[in-house]
Amino acid sequence: MSAPAYLTQHQNRFLEELMDWLRIPSVSADAAFHGDVLRAADFLKEKLEAAGAANVELCATAGNPIVYGEYFVGEDKPTVLVYGHYDVQPADPYELWTSPPFEPVIKDEQIYARGACDDKGQVYMHVKALEVMRAQGEVPCNLKFMVEGEEEIGSNNLAIFVKENKEKLKADVILISDTGILANDVPSIEVGLRGLSYHEVEVTGPNRDLHSGLYGGAVLNPINALCRMIASLHDENYHITIPGFYDQVATLGEAERAELAQAPFSESGFEQSIGLPAAVGEAGYTTPERTSIRPTLDVNGIWGGYIGEGAKTVIPSKAFAKISMRLVPNQTSEQITALFQQHFTSIAPAGVTVQVRPHHGGEPVLTPTDSVAYRAAARALETTFGKKPVPTRGGGSIPIVAMFKSELGLDTVLLGFGLDSDAIHSPNEHFGVFNFLKGIETIPEFYKEYAAS
Amino acid sequence: MSAPAYLTQHQNRFLEELMDWLRIPSVSADAAFHGDVLRAADFLKEKLEAAGAANVELCATAGNPIVYGEYFVGEDKPTVLVYGHYDVQPADPYELWTSPPFEPVIKDEQIYARGACDDKGQVYMHVKALEVMRAQGEVPCNLKFMVEGEEEIGSNNLAIFVKENKEKLKADVILISDTGILANDVPSIEVGLRGLSYHEVEVTGPNRDLHSGLYGGAVLNPINALCRMIASLHDENYHITIPGFYDQVATLGEAERAELAQAPFSESGFEQSIGLPAAVGEAGYTTPERTSIRPTLDVNGIWGGYIGEGAKTVIPSKAFAKISMRLVPNQTSEQITALFQQHFTSIAPAGVTVQVRPHHGGEPVLTPTDSVAYRAAARALETTFGKKPVPTRGGGSIPIVAMFKSELGLDTVLLGFGLDSDAIHSPNEHFGVFNFLKGIETIPEFYKEYAAS
Repeated sequence: MSAPAYLTQHQNRFLEELMDWLRIPSVSADAAFHGDVLRAADFLKEKLEAAGAANVELCATAGNPIVYGEYFVGEDKPTVLVYGHYDVQPADPYELWTSPPFEPVIKDEQIYARGACDDKGQVYMHVKALEVMRAQGEVPCNLKFMVEGEEEIGSNNLAIFVKENKEKLKADVILISDTGILANDVPSIEVGLRGLSYHEVEVTGPNRDLHSGLYGGAVLNPINALCRMIASLHDENYHITIPGFYDQVATLGEAERAELAQAPFSESGFEQSIGLPAAVGEAGYTTPERTSIRPTLDVNGIWGGYIGEGAKTVIPSKAFAKISMRLVPNQTSEQITALFQQHFTSIAPAGVTVQVRPHHGGEPVLTPTDSVAYRAAARALETTFGKKPVPTRGGGSIPIVAMFKSELGLDTVLLGFGLDSDAIHSPNEHFGVFNFLKGIETIPEFYKEYAAS
Repeated sequence: MSAPAYLTQHQNRFLEELMDWLRIPSVSADAAFHGDVLRAADFLKEKLEAAGAANVELCATAGNPIVYGEYFVGEDKPTVLVYGHYDVQPADPYELWTSPPFEPVIKDEQIYARGACDDKGQVYMHVKALEVMRAQGEVPCNLKFMVEGEEEIGSNNLAIFVKENKEKLKADVILISDTGILANDVPSIEVGLRGLSYHEVEVTGPNRDLHSGLYGGAVLNPINALCRMIASLHDENYHITIPGFYDQVATLGEAERAELAQAPFSESGFEQSIGLPAAVGEAGYTTPERTSIRPTLDVNGIWGGYIGEGAKTVIPSKAFAKISMRLVPNQTSEQITALFQQHFTSIAPAGVTVQVRPHHGGEPVLTPTDSVAYRAAARALETTFGKKPVPTRGGGSIPIVAMFKSELGLDTVLLGFGLDSDAIHSPNEHFGVFNFLKGIETIPEFYKEYAAS
């Protein structure tokens, strides 16, 4: 039976298995879910073994285990290292989900659940692609699977694991499905990713909460101070004001910008899809450019004072924010993290003190479009979509891509099947059944093309 | 036996009774405590009856009941209406209390508990003063007690109660102990209070939380927008920038400012008492002026995005803040509330929408220093402290003082015994045993002086 036929015959089971995995709330950012994270790793180990992978193991780390497995076909075949992650983002705010985040349902041909697209659904395409290939009796490449449980919190232990297991991880290329395509009728391959510099800041005023009547006017309110500091990080054109922030930014020539502009994009469609009155960003750049080739600074969370029911007239002792920057070539997270810490501390007004605590960082990457692997991926997508894919630059970050290059000397192919509208990191995350199945169909084509080149 | 002797003999019981009351967490701002609020009202009713008050009742309102009671001595005597409140501020953040907020303890001659000073401790001085006077066989004035349970959330139902019970509340003057003295060796009487305009603001960007990588740069982050809007409410001199905000502010002449400057004040002592690097405020005014004769704008709470453990790379759909302004004569809360709503809505940048929801307001007041009641209070303090009290203007708000004047035509005497350092509205609120007992000793002196004038 042909691969598509086998896939059609078994697709319901494939979906059931994925939904079983999605029921496990493997939230890595919150220690309360630690047991679930481990259960999610066990689940994957079992399914990799069932699909025929060998030497499947849970590799212990200082944090969550890395699920590793292999499928060897021959010395003469190229080896592909498949990377993904089984941890998911926190699901809150829960009340905005139309169905519970960890009770997956299929509605309108979409699988709704936290992790449906990012990244359990896309990892599971690879597990099932192996099953399909074995059912066909043809696995064209040697495969190695490395699926971590800390991608959403910075992959620190993965970096250590990779450093310590270079021989085990020897391969010719890395394959990752953790990105997307432009549309289900517009296949594309991401060739660029932004880096990340993430910080928690703490502004301290008085040594205790104060009555805003008795003290108001004579004490700089740390919330007001924090707001003033954050506001000063952008100018009126939404340029970032941190000195030196743009120094390393690679500016694209008109030709490159024109090429990127080829990708179909509707400004009004973009605004409508997220209910925005207007898309707003850095002056002088288009919306696709603002989300790909330009760095950003966003407050991901802020809190301070009384946030309960009703009114409390308090001047709080402290105010906090989580602030992250997306980086582009040739910025480095180390350099931007240092610039941010130095600058944010320096702009603290008299009357408050400031602490900046960096979280994880990640490096921006550009992957080559002239490599054997990229061309194999392009041909695979053309086969399954009937259309040549366009190269795109994504706004997200997969910090380990740069780490794989530096530690293993390997390039990465980003063969992702999600859509921007999948609401990853948001309430009601979902993944198209079409996209899940198309991924399972396309991945074997990639191996075929790659082995043949 | 003399009044001081009786007080000395019974002071331990008086303290025990107060601590029993403080054990009831009568937090009016949080519906979760509604049952406790009612228990606190019952407790007071019982103690007023025990002290000898007549016609003690719980007057139902649309919200929490008002405890009312009377003590009648004769048509020929003046009538004093004693006002206070039995509700307390929320106690969070609980973790900053050195002992639990609703398990009162006496340490270093201080009673530690939420409400110890604001206002249960000061209300209870009046209950015990009645007991002491009756033990002496001399109550110089007719007394009416009106103690509400919604002062910390705006006293809306008290205003309705007063409108509907003008005959019942007929009196010659209003006596309130909900303020403080400058120091235990510097008796003072507050003659001015600031008003209040309190708002909750909501800034909405995209219709759902977004991935800060996929969307960052092309979407105005509502937290960044809120910070920019809040920052713009003050200029570099900490003047408030809302158009028309200062138009009605009564500016004091040099003579008046010089008189206020008489009150002993130590800038360094002020800074040290709250662990401030530096007291910061509106240019051109001293710290005591900034907290009394000048209006303010403070953010009392702010929240948005991910505030949990770890990192989440999200652009939230919404950001919120609670913003309040302290008002001075001749501002009105109605006018400032309208100005704030209009202005804050008008400064919303393109890309977000803004909602402003006013909470309660209150009017600033100045009470006369040449009235019979003020002079009686001054003589009473001079008798018990051995020192003439100084008139001061406080920064807090007791909105109902202006309401009593407009509805009942009555002036108020603010005979309070707290200290700024009592940490009301903060963790570790406390009230000096000295202050509690001195209040019980001074209140009968006030009635004696007032009846004699």
